[in-house]
Amino acid sequence: MWYGEPVAYRARIRIRFGDEDHAGIVYYPRFFDYFHQAFEDFFADEAGRTYKEVLDDDGFGWPSVHAEADFRAPLRFGDVLELELAVEHVGTKSATFVYRGTRVGDGAEIVRGRVTVVCIRMGSFEARPIPETYRRLFERHLAA
Amino acid sequence: MWYGEPVAYRARIRIRFGDEDHAGIVYYPRFFDYFHQAFEDFFADEAGRTYKEVLDDDGFGWPSVHAEADFRAPLRFGDVLELELAVEHVGTKSATFVYRGTRVGDGAEIVRGRVTVVCIRMGSFEARPIPETYRRLFERHLAA
Amino acid sequence: MWYGEPVAYRARIRIRFGDEDHAGIVYYPRFFDYFHQAFEDFFADEAGRTYKEVLDDDGFGWPSVHAEADFRAPLRFGDVLELELAVEHVGTKSATFVYRGTRVGDGAEIVRGRVTVVCIRMGSFEARPIPETYRRLFERHLAA
Amino acid sequence: MWYGEPVAYRARIRIRFGDEDHAGIVYYPRFFDYFHQAFEDFFADEAGRTYKEVLDDDGFGWPSVHAEADFRAPLRFGDVLELELAVEHVGTKSATFVYRGTRVGDGAEIVRGRVTVVCIRMGSFEARPIPETYRRLFERHLAA
Repeated sequence: MWYGEPVAYRARIRIRFGDEDHAGIVYYPRFFDYFHQAFEDFFADEAGRTYKEVLDDDGFGWPSVHAEADFRAPLRFGDVLELELAVEHVGTKSATFVYRGTRVGDGAEIVRGRVTVVCIRMGSFEARPIPETYRRLFERHLAA
Repeated sequence: MWYGEPVAYRARIRIRFGDEDHAGIVYYPRFFDYFHQAFEDFFADEAGRTYKEVLDDDGFGWPSVHAEADFRAPLRFGDVLELELAVEHVGTKSATFVYRGTRVGDGAEIVRGRVTVVCIRMGSFEARPIPETYRRLFERHLAA
Repeated sequence: MWYGEPVAYRARIRIRFGDEDHAGIVYYPRFFDYFHQAFEDFFADEAGRTYKEVLDDDGFGWPSVHAEADFRAPLRFGDVLELELAVEHVGTKSATFVYRGTRVGDGAEIVRGRVTVVCIRMGSFEARPIPETYRRLFERHLAA
Repeated sequence: MWYGEPVAYRARIRIRFGDEDHAGIVYYPRFFDYFHQAFEDFFADEAGRTYKEVLDDDGFGWPSVHAEADFRAPLRFGDVLELELAVEHVGTKSATFVYRGTRVGDGAEIVRGRVTVVCIRMGSFEARPIPETYRRLFERHLAA
């Protein structure tokens, strides 16, 4: 990878009428759902395998063992969230993804997140080394 | 069943901070989720089998083929919904459940619902006759 | 409207990893959420006003007073649902929308739905006549 | 507080049919929803004010600015989660709550979480000092 190549994967999430809470802002657990949606689409768009194929055909699962987020500004119904996903670290059996969400339009930073997933064999749920294909995929998206 | 015997099963649902929508009332799809929660608890409380045991140990699934609801008054965060579930009809392979939801406190009628489920064999998803145990259970809760 | 003009609005919904239930199919209450997402996008795409603008700037709300669905075939994670929305009836203060969902790829019919909404003044929640702009919008999408 | 006094608040969450994901375990974003449900009930049960009263009558909101969780073992439909909530830190305008979730029955540790909330004035969303009543409530639940 040469200097300046964009490494982050980008997804856009439209905030829905039912996504707010009683305080009139996005109910915070939904941000982790948004992260997961971006994570799913990342495989289809960047690995050429849908997340379903990765799980059901290839037999690799990626359960989260750690998730965190900092909420910088409220997000509301009607907003569109641009989520950047990059890889912070690739270990033998785990990988850490980082997320940065900004509001489309004014570019306000809304959320930053970090999710560590473990590679497992679907069925047994046993941890297993990340296969080469996915390792390369993740490494291509390593955050600067 | 003799005159006056209560036939309806009752469940209480606490309306949560995240259950409202942008208009400040319960997002209507959630009512079907509330119906399902009552349906799950109905088995544990009335059949002496948790819904999970019914599905995973006994091998009977109950997917919905029809669902409807009339929304009579808005419900909000902090309200408690009392849901009555009764059986409207038991067929050979299907059964229809009716729901009536009132707000605890003032008794206002909030919602009425009707959900038809089909008895299937888990795994194959093939429709099958409702087994005698569940038929009797449903018949004990037939609406007047 | 002349013969052959398409009247249905179409939206595509990607079924997510978290949308399934313990039986491995889409948890049925989510279909009503899918209907609502299509309903939201219908305004932005066909009325030239986002649903948020309709609610917050124009002051018109559209709470559901009736919703129903027939589930024809199971839908699963990884599927894409094409939802057609059309208007079945426009009354003075209410309108009924019908939905038909098919699976992209094999075209299998998955779900049919019907949702009646009432036009209200946001804030007071009082029913009010559907304004001319929206009446025309709905009439342009009347189902054949 | 004297030795041995229980400081943690406990809530029980029944894992629902619709809470699982395609891998057959609880979809991880829902854990943050479970945390919030316990947080809501904490006020009603320990402060003698429902969370709705705190927000709507008293005018104090508690949006999350940070949330994190470690997922130790999978949780599934039919399980019951016992969530302990305690307070890790009380600042001038913010407080940090910690969560520990175990499965009822075998006591397996399922999840640990940490959520930092800021005290705001509802309406303006301006941060404000935590009022004395809530400060005392939080301090009574300080983790050892």
